Amino acid sequence: MTTQSTEQVIRETIDRVLTRVNALSEPGPGYTRPSYSDLETLAHAVIRDEAEALGLAVTTDAAGNLLARMEGQDRSAPALHVGSHLDTVGQGGAYDGQAGVAAGLALAAALKAEGQVPPVDLVVIVTRAEESVWFPASYLGSRGHLGRLTRADLEVARADTGRTLADHMTAQGLDPEAALQAAPPRPAHFIEFHIEQGPVLDQAQEPFAIVRGVRGGLRYRNAQIHGTWAHSGGAPRDQRADAVFAFADLVTALDAEWGRRLDAGEDLAVTFGRVDAASPVHAMAKVPGELEFCIDIRSEDDAVLDAMDGVLKDMIAGIETARPGIRFELGAQSRSRPAALSAGLGDWIAEGATARGEAPRRMLSGGGHDAAAFAAAGWDSVMVFIRNWDGSHCPEEGMDPADLARGVAALHAAVLSGAALPEMP
Amino acid sequence: MTTQSTEQVIRETIDRVLTRVNALSEPGPGYTRPSYSDLETLAHAVIRDEAEALGLAVTTDAAGNLLARMEGQDRSAPALHVGSHLDTVGQGGAYDGQAGVAAGLALAAALKAEGQVPPVDLVVIVTRAEESVWFPASYLGSRGHLGRLTRADLEVARADTGRTLADHMTAQGLDPEAALQAAPPRPAHFIEFHIEQGPVLDQAQEPFAIVRGVRGGLRYRNAQIHGTWAHSGGAPRDQRADAVFAFADLVTALDAEWGRRLDAGEDLAVTFGRVDAASPVHAMAKVPGELEFCIDIRSEDDAVLDAMDGVLKDMIAGIETARPGIRFELGAQSRSRPAALSAGLGDWIAEGATARGEAPRRMLSGGGHDAAAFAAAGWDSVMVFIRNWDGSHCPEEGMDPADLARGVAALHAAVLSGAALPEMP
Repeated sequence: MTTQSTEQVIRETIDRVLTRVNALSEPGPGYTRPSYSDLETLAHAVIRDEAEALGLAVTTDAAGNLLARMEGQDRSAPALHVGSHLDTVGQGGAYDGQAGVAAGLALAAALKAEGQVPPVDLVVIVTRAEESVWFPASYLGSRGHLGRLTRADLEVARADTGRTLADHMTAQGLDPEAALQAAPPRPAHFIEFHIEQGPVLDQAQEPFAIVRGVRGGLRYRNAQIHGTWAHSGGAPRDQRADAVFAFADLVTALDAEWGRRLDAGEDLAVTFGRVDAASPVHAMAKVPGELEFCIDIRSEDDAVLDAMDGVLKDMIAGIETARPGIRFELGAQSRSRPAALSAGLGDWIAEGATARGEAPRRMLSGGGHDAAAFAAAGWDSVMVFIRNWDGSHCPEEGMDPADLARGVAALHAAVLSGAALPEMP
Repeated sequence: MTTQSTEQVIRETIDRVLTRVNALSEPGPGYTRPSYSDLETLAHAVIRDEAEALGLAVTTDAAGNLLARMEGQDRSAPALHVGSHLDTVGQGGAYDGQAGVAAGLALAAALKAEGQVPPVDLVVIVTRAEESVWFPASYLGSRGHLGRLTRADLEVARADTGRTLADHMTAQGLDPEAALQAAPPRPAHFIEFHIEQGPVLDQAQEPFAIVRGVRGGLRYRNAQIHGTWAHSGGAPRDQRADAVFAFADLVTALDAEWGRRLDAGEDLAVTFGRVDAASPVHAMAKVPGELEFCIDIRSEDDAVLDAMDGVLKDMIAGIETARPGIRFELGAQSRSRPAALSAGLGDWIAEGATARGEAPRRMLSGGGHDAAAFAAAGWDSVMVFIRNWDGSHCPEEGMDPADLARGVAALHAAVLSGAALPEMP
């Protein structure tokens, strides 16, 4: 039974944590805390402060992730981890990551305020480096916790500084070699609250949902089109190698393919997040000879990602043939695998919601999240999506803390329901 | 009759002028002399030095254009002006503009070396501010000479400094008000040698050609597409307002329209010289909510430009309907009228070429040039195109000075042929 005062503790904790964390940012608009930056470390220190005030035992792992543990009734059972990350994209929003950490602390605060002991250990977990816009590699922080970092990961350069992950970890007082050697912890339960990053719940007027899976991604972060510079009035159409027209061919062809595959029932999303034909050499009176772009293809089905990589390359070959002088260079591919999340853990939370008169839908996550890394490592891992609007990864990113509080209250009800947590997978 | 030593003087003058002018540039790659910059003024001083060494009478007009006069046999007839400009685009090439100035000086040097007096006054003319990439307005320097500057022109801001034309003129020791008040000079003859800025002559293996007209231009220099920022994995396809996909729709639609109009015999060129979806807010994991671009549409037929402006706006309306949330903002339009050049003056030069065993083709200029401004002001104006390769408006811009020398020799032969210059239009 969630009392009125419990709801108040949940809500106050959420508001306070969001305010304290978001006070730490590079100058706006929006919020900017790069991965493995001083600002990310300061945000972790806020959570340490909050957790210690609740009497939780705080540790950090070799990769700099923070774990704040409240002892449960059964100390030998796999612990229930609740958390997310505190780094942001550049000029990001107030909730992506932060909301999931606030949720974990709010649950712990509610249990403490009531004098309740959870059935198993509750661990508020704060990961590092979830936003791969900084280090172009997926889930570096959570993979660090899971003993799944590779030596290649340590050499990845941060986009803004050009310095390696190892370098940035060292600058934050961490030992990259120790993170590399870290033994995988025993798999446990992991729940991540996160804004939806899409309009589905907002349009359906639903406060939160259970996430059944996380899309995987296929990315070319530094693709280029090489053509031929020419005068905009002087070059005949059939002798141009115009990088912008070639790019438009690709976008239009992939747009049509995307529509066809959705119609066929496949899951797919295609985004060109960055297009750059705006160097000092580009000018109105010049046929553009160069264009840089990135492409992000996502699906819940790895086979669709494989197929789309082939389609992309076939399309490029076709454009190169149709436009002599045009040459695409896709550059390095990065890939994250789709992850099915725990139906059992989702049901367990949903039962808590049902007890409170809520009926959260099951849905898919378009974005990649730490929960996918935990699932891939054999953890019993699930997400709760919170309604959001005005986009995500942007200063306008909207969320009502009351919606997050309703989700946390559902989890709180599940924790106190006496219902058994799922068996580990 | 052009002797071997005359050809040598022409060639040596061309080489020396190109070398001296191109020594004046911002750091490379390529050559950068902004309009109404110190570097442009220094380049004009080189021509003053060269012209005075030939004994020509050098003056400048209120807009800072340079005129170097060699007296002719008939001092009362309209003078024969030969020249071009010395400003460049950013990171431009070694010949655009420079070649036309070198040609004028080479003709004067050859006549001086031979002790010949031209039938009418020969004026080597060096204009200012032809490259509208700096001040977004067409033919500012030559319009200044022609008494056609407007007060609005004086307020145009230079793209790199943000300071007005009036400001930059003043900084170069000029009086903008005097330029504004300048009386139009008596119309005369104007010949501009210029690289082709296209591959036609190079592919046909022809050294030079007579230009029968200059395409006009319809431009939107600062167009924008506004959409909605969203997460690249989270936003369903049918609810996105993706600025990049909207842009690709426009490019693809205009590409098809361009092909249809060429097939129908119309003259048209379409270029998106600059595309910018690469701000700090743009990122791989974001559906792009903003894109900036410029569009440059050219034709020898003003009616085609008018029609294309309508087509462009209809296409935009269609895209906005098909993609809710997308809004185009074309911004200010700038326009230059197509110009028919002087068939009579072209024939007069061609006869000089014929006497030397050359058969220059007649062709169209895709790029706008000062010759169009002179033609618009009632001058007897024509251009000679020189074969070029590897593009123009770029560091790689190629031209063989020997080709330019062959064109100048043709003009030299015309000057000495005794054939009358055309009547003024």
